[in-house]
Amino acid sequence: MVLETISSPQDLKQLSREDLRRVVDEARQALLEKTSQHGGHNGPNFGMVEMTVAMHYVFNSPVDKFIFDVSHQSYVHKMLTGRAQAFLDSAHYDDVSGYTNPKESEHDLFTIGHTSTSLSLASGVAKARDLKDEVYNVVAVIGDGSLSGGMAYEGLNQIATEGTNTIVIVNDNEQSIAINPTGGIYTALRDLRESKGQADNNLFKALGFDYHYLDAGNDLDQLIALFEEVKDANHPVLLHIHTQKGHGVSFMEENREAFHAGGPYNPETGEYLRASNASETYNSITTSFVLDKIKNDQTVIAVNAGTPMFMLNQDQRKQAGKQFVDVGIAEEEAATMAAGLAKNGAKPIWYVAAPFMQRTYDQWSHDIALNNLPVTTLVYSASVSAMNDESHLGFFDIPFLAHIPNVVYLAPTSKEEHLAMLDWAVEQNEHPVAIRIPVGPLRETGIVDTTDYSILNKNQVTQNGNKVAIFGLGNFYALAEEVAKELAAKHGITATIVNPKFITGLDEELLDSLESDHQVVVTLEDGVLEGGYGQMVASYLGDADLKVQNYGVEKAFHDRYNAQELLAENGITVDNIVKNIIKVLD
Amino acid sequence: MVLETISSPQDLKQLSREDLRRVVDEARQALLEKTSQHGGHNGPNFGMVEMTVAMHYVFNSPVDKFIFDVSHQSYVHKMLTGRAQAFLDSAHYDDVSGYTNPKESEHDLFTIGHTSTSLSLASGVAKARDLKDEVYNVVAVIGDGSLSGGMAYEGLNQIATEGTNTIVIVNDNEQSIAINPTGGIYTALRDLRESKGQADNNLFKALGFDYHYLDAGNDLDQLIALFEEVKDANHPVLLHIHTQKGHGVSFMEENREAFHAGGPYNPETGEYLRASNASETYNSITTSFVLDKIKNDQTVIAVNAGTPMFMLNQDQRKQAGKQFVDVGIAEEEAATMAAGLAKNGAKPIWYVAAPFMQRTYDQWSHDIALNNLPVTTLVYSASVSAMNDESHLGFFDIPFLAHIPNVVYLAPTSKEEHLAMLDWAVEQNEHPVAIRIPVGPLRETGIVDTTDYSILNKNQVTQNGNKVAIFGLGNFYALAEEVAKELAAKHGITATIVNPKFITGLDEELLDSLESDHQVVVTLEDGVLEGGYGQMVASYLGDADLKVQNYGVEKAFHDRYNAQELLAENGITVDNIVKNIIKVLD
Repeated sequence: MVLETISSPQDLKQLSREDLRRVVDEARQALLEKTSQHGGHNGPNFGMVEMTVAMHYVFNSPVDKFIFDVSHQSYVHKMLTGRAQAFLDSAHYDDVSGYTNPKESEHDLFTIGHTSTSLSLASGVAKARDLKDEVYNVVAVIGDGSLSGGMAYEGLNQIATEGTNTIVIVNDNEQSIAINPTGGIYTALRDLRESKGQADNNLFKALGFDYHYLDAGNDLDQLIALFEEVKDANHPVLLHIHTQKGHGVSFMEENREAFHAGGPYNPETGEYLRASNASETYNSITTSFVLDKIKNDQTVIAVNAGTPMFMLNQDQRKQAGKQFVDVGIAEEEAATMAAGLAKNGAKPIWYVAAPFMQRTYDQWSHDIALNNLPVTTLVYSASVSAMNDESHLGFFDIPFLAHIPNVVYLAPTSKEEHLAMLDWAVEQNEHPVAIRIPVGPLRETGIVDTTDYSILNKNQVTQNGNKVAIFGLGNFYALAEEVAKELAAKHGITATIVNPKFITGLDEELLDSLESDHQVVVTLEDGVLEGGYGQMVASYLGDADLKVQNYGVEKAFHDRYNAQELLAENGITVDNIVKNIIKVLD
Repeated sequence: MVLETISSPQDLKQLSREDLRRVVDEARQALLEKTSQHGGHNGPNFGMVEMTVAMHYVFNSPVDKFIFDVSHQSYVHKMLTGRAQAFLDSAHYDDVSGYTNPKESEHDLFTIGHTSTSLSLASGVAKARDLKDEVYNVVAVIGDGSLSGGMAYEGLNQIATEGTNTIVIVNDNEQSIAINPTGGIYTALRDLRESKGQADNNLFKALGFDYHYLDAGNDLDQLIALFEEVKDANHPVLLHIHTQKGHGVSFMEENREAFHAGGPYNPETGEYLRASNASETYNSITTSFVLDKIKNDQTVIAVNAGTPMFMLNQDQRKQAGKQFVDVGIAEEEAATMAAGLAKNGAKPIWYVAAPFMQRTYDQWSHDIALNNLPVTTLVYSASVSAMNDESHLGFFDIPFLAHIPNVVYLAPTSKEEHLAMLDWAVEQNEHPVAIRIPVGPLRETGIVDTTDYSILNKNQVTQNGNKVAIFGLGNFYALAEEVAKELAAKHGITATIVNPKFITGLDEELLDSLESDHQVVVTLEDGVLEGGYGQMVASYLGDADLKVQNYGVEKAFHDRYNAQELLAENGITVDNIVKNIIKVLD
């Protein structure tokens, strides 16, 4: 195996063209074995094998700087920079992250997991080079999907303005995470592909780039020739390279949306091995709700930025017709378009993963909240127990969203509550409402929730007690019940249990009433402690005769952690919470 | 006067072409009188007079929907939609805001004050129209400066994708707030202007727009003809209209950067009437510091997004040469470019106004903080006492920034501290550091600050006392001193006074030590209460034997308020703070 002999790109440069081709084949085989067993970003990496080999063959990393957009397509780059074992030996599969990571290698400049940032990073890296009077290539690789993000355009502008060496590789596999929308940049790229780069009105040329088109983006020889042609250019170059997503694996080539990411799967048939999910989940009831609303009201519209499959599959999107819109990987557009929709009498339901919602602070504040528009936002993966890559953490949403005026952010604790909140959010016309879709097993109360959510910040006391009051926010409501149970069993204390429901405001009447017969108030939230819900409670009760104990996760970019362990490290266990309560009771 | 007879656009439509021209002249005269006495956005409005009259003459607002980007150029629109008095009668100058405002008029769809949002809003408004099977024009007006923002590009893409009626007017006056950079979109626009719209590689056509160019953008007849031509189009149209910033006022035409906004000024000579600011301010010492660093270290670079004049004037920028970069009104690019600069060994100093920093949450989190890069960020206008338009509030920066891991956010209280923090921030290599430039009169201690800021979260106790500890953060440190003085004078209490210096973390040792001989801890911060600094203190001390009283402004979009009144409404007066302290003391 040639791949095993490559411990750095220097080794690659010594190989014959034939051996390089063997590296391509071996790398693709390693990808198939690892991703079929381990899961990961499939299609993007299979399409990039030849290009990555050619990049390392022609350029000189780490002197030349490679920046991969999102960096989910960097697996072969990792194989060629001393980390092949993590793809060849299943015992070492977890040695590397799924993204570039400077802690792993000097060939990885940045930790990256979000879209459309590579060109801005490259503009800075190149400018620093120029300030220091150094000479080398800065090479950024960005997919056609990522080009829909506004930051990519800002980066293109800045690179063109600097006017010095930066080589932008547009890896155009004709597909974002989902199928590309038609129009705008996608149509511009299609016109360029169909004309082999000769179309009138080339927007990259308009912005000032030296533009090159390569149709055979999985042809090693042509890639090498192109890179050699532009290496060491003294001006901004844009290489528009047409690749095939999932190249070399028939079921990936055919079903590109399903094989963007996922696994494990059967490497022969492409059948995903995950258990079929027949039972109801919070996600599935949300999807049913949304489809039902769409069917019954032509002004309801589901809005999403580039990850539609997490709510609606391809059939369901077809069913929704013009009442569904995917704006591309352009979260800001999704948020502000939703504001425009709401203003003009439509009922937008925008769904977004917590780690990517954080791309839209100003759109939340200035467009949705300042204008106080009834946009319904469904926030998924907002939990310590959701994605656990340091670039994909979903538990900063409360400090992010809860302190923006006018926003109503809700934390359901059961199926019934979730459905009632959803319905209220979509049908009311007074507030921007976000709902933190619960993460965890579906909890059913069996009782239809008839709460009037227009009475803001009204908490639900689910058990009346004394001495101790426990506020279990959203996902942690069940934990509050467990703590109360333990207090009763071990210490004979009947605690008050509160389901706050509202993240964005306090039930001041309830909090005031606790002072008379409670000694300690405990808040539990499935998120970061700092700037969270509990700290608002602590502040409000700051000069009351009550102790307040807030639980949440310490702010840090925790990486590939075990959720239970992380919670335990932060004291979030029934035993520890009970112990701390008992400590402060008279 | 014809203008006085126009109470709605319907009145305008009845006028002869000659009378329309009189309206143009009268509107321009009213602008001159009001802005010279009252200040405001000058250049953008003077350049838009003819276009605004033509828009209201041809289109049918409010059935047709007008959306003005930033909306700082909407003064004439206001004059023509029932609000002329606010421009003709000085007693009524304050009746209207400087931006569109739905509370003022049905002709104003949105409250807007930030850049590049208009096209996304338009895409939503148009889509809602289509969902409801309604028919009318959606018209968005965006300047060439605003086109540099990534959201504008996302909006263009979505409008093109929808493929129905939206008319985008690019008001190209060849200038952003400052002089435009060269390159990218600015060069693309220049090529189109110079070729009268005929340039090869038209990026608007590439994105799918029906493109029209008008060179004579201050010619009423040509504007009317163009609008009549495209009105009721069934597809996306882009009108590239070349106007003159400050048109009709010679000193504005000549000095476009100075006359973007400001005032009052002498309407004959264009001389600004503000007192010359010879004495030192926090801004002036910051500028001197930055220029000095640039002079002595070729890797230092000042980075800014579209508002360079708030730190460096035109001469100073020239002096900085390639060690200054204005990326256009593209805050995300500025932040992430700074990350790239820092990664590659440069020392970026990014300066940004608090209300616009909020356009960069994900760039802060994912690009700067996750990668833990030594970017120095100087945050100005972060105070209740800074800009007071609801779209320009600068006091949400603490909940925004303080809960992102790895960030060190500093709050200086004096000239000496500010300079010491600046120097440490730029020269260290361990942390992303932001400094909240003080707002208010320069305070000098006369003692050089030799603090080692690499010892994070170490607070300074400036007076040792007992019973009461007062934490005066940044701008409110002086208030803490006043409260302490009053406590001493009226109640014989010597309070502990703390200058926290660090916003992003607590001095736990100090806080722990207070429990033995203090009864109440008071926090004072010049910002929003919710999610702020004080709430972290309250949480930390939640189960200590101490009361905590947090002061800050209640979260809301306060609009055109008087700062002293707003603070008083939020209990932030010496008397009230002292009263509440005494109340909880034994």
